[in-house]
Amino acid sequence: MIVVLAGGVGAARFLRGAVRVVPPEEITVIGNTGDDIDIYGVHVSPDLDIVTYMLGGVFDEQRGFGLIGDSHVAMDQLAALSEEIWFALGDRDLEVCRVRTAWLTAGVTPSESAARIAARFDVRVRLLPMTDDRVHTVIETDDGPLHFQEYWVKHRAAVAATAVRLHGVEDARPAPGVLDAIADADVVLLAPSNPVVSIGTILQITGIRDALRATRAPVVAVSPIVGGRVVRGMADKLLPVTGAEVSARGVAGLYADFLDGFVIDEADEHLAHAIEELGITVEVTQTMMHTPEDAAALAKRTIDLAERLRA
Amino acid sequence: MIVVLAGGVGAARFLRGAVRVVPPEEITVIGNTGDDIDIYGVHVSPDLDIVTYMLGGVFDEQRGFGLIGDSHVAMDQLAALSEEIWFALGDRDLEVCRVRTAWLTAGVTPSESAARIAARFDVRVRLLPMTDDRVHTVIETDDGPLHFQEYWVKHRAAVAATAVRLHGVEDARPAPGVLDAIADADVVLLAPSNPVVSIGTILQITGIRDALRATRAPVVAVSPIVGGRVVRGMADKLLPVTGAEVSARGVAGLYADFLDGFVIDEADEHLAHAIEELGITVEVTQTMMHTPEDAAALAKRTIDLAERLRA
Repeated sequence: MIVVLAGGVGAARFLRGAVRVVPPEEITVIGNTGDDIDIYGVHVSPDLDIVTYMLGGVFDEQRGFGLIGDSHVAMDQLAALSEEIWFALGDRDLEVCRVRTAWLTAGVTPSESAARIAARFDVRVRLLPMTDDRVHTVIETDDGPLHFQEYWVKHRAAVAATAVRLHGVEDARPAPGVLDAIADADVVLLAPSNPVVSIGTILQITGIRDALRATRAPVVAVSPIVGGRVVRGMADKLLPVTGAEVSARGVAGLYADFLDGFVIDEADEHLAHAIEELGITVEVTQTMMHTPEDAAALAKRTIDLAERLRA
Repeated sequence: MIVVLAGGVGAARFLRGAVRVVPPEEITVIGNTGDDIDIYGVHVSPDLDIVTYMLGGVFDEQRGFGLIGDSHVAMDQLAALSEEIWFALGDRDLEVCRVRTAWLTAGVTPSESAARIAARFDVRVRLLPMTDDRVHTVIETDDGPLHFQEYWVKHRAAVAATAVRLHGVEDARPAPGVLDAIADADVVLLAPSNPVVSIGTILQITGIRDALRATRAPVVAVSPIVGGRVVRGMADKLLPVTGAEVSARGVAGLYADFLDGFVIDEADEHLAHAIEELGITVEVTQTMMHTPEDAAALAKRTIDLAERLRA
């Protein structure tokens, strides 16, 4: 069994590659729910849905969220009737959220809800939210706190962040199956997602970081930073808030207490030695995922590294 | 000032005629909210919206509800993802309901919300809900109670109703302006709406029936029943539950304590004498509203009768 800690688009692309090299039934995804937001009267769970839509073959790569070919009658009408729209959802995407909201309101757990939605899209990996408790990432700025989505989508990460915190984390526990999956895994992978607000959020849930330290499975991450520049969404954003350097080395430092292997891009080969000094085995490869084939090759290199580290 | 007590489609058609014969600014509509339902996470207020859409010139006459030319992506997606859809809402219509819901959640009153929505559709009559309190009509059946919409839309009024009651009526008060509008009116009209669940519901709100009895304005109704048959939606349904005869005479009997004039169809001319025995002045005319011109002619005859009764 392969466990993958996952954020949004970067993780989803990586997973699309992974299911080409291992059977999807052998993959458990632990997804970030810190980006979740209640808006338009529905509960949006962007990272879980991005993974679901990508693996379901219906992700809108052009827009970077939502369902391909979706219409946008609802947002147009809302804009005509009401306020400015800063968080767009396609019509079909909105209904996915409405169905989720109805289930949650009826007492269905987020885990069960995520599984049901994944099943509707014929996704065969096991998709677990990191927690069934309500948490959300808050970005502190000089103008006050912002919900992560306000910071990320509304302000396009253009206001200065002074701190990042996970609201509700004190009372949050890992979703059922999360700790067992990590403990029983053959391999644990960290997808190339934002190390602060995607992977970093998952790591904040009580018990998950300890489970990564304790598992006998090798833990291997794929660097979300290539050459210190913005290459995969905004994976480089918010790293400075943690005091970490915006580089593969900076990310490796955040994971050093549990990480066994790190896959970095050829552009960062010069950092390999510094990362290995942290006691982490480094694999250097081409990490850009322009096509599903690129993603499959990257997933294979990553899994191969983990297998070597198990041996 | 003309006050019109109004249900759904029949009332909306009548009002579309009325605004052709008097300036819309001189009309106050008191609308039924007993048909309101919370579904899909939004608050639907069908009768108020039917009036708004009809007067806004965007009512879907073909379907008998909603906005003309609306799309139905949301319901299709919901059906694909989830359960059977028995209460259809078009995409744009759904967003009207979402905006309303957001306002109500934020503490905006139903009255203010109705006024804002009407303004968005350039409706110039004053549209008041009968109450700002939450009420809904419950139809008792041998299989237990049904929300009015379940009875009406899901079961198409095909299950036997044993009683009709307005849930929440004990705590409901007329919306601001309702009693004043009736007291200060020059003319009060009852649109040709269902006498049990549209007009009858409005009459159940504490103080409204008394205000109709007390107002110096003549009160004139248009019969929703023509020849005892189903002619305007299902206006004849549920009358038997009240013990009233399914006829213009039966309806007149329900209003007799406050009604001054009654407009009945030529098909019911033979009932005129029996209705006049109730102390009600009867006007006989063609009451079917196939076109806006028909509706305008009916509105004019109705208002003219009221003016004669004032003199």
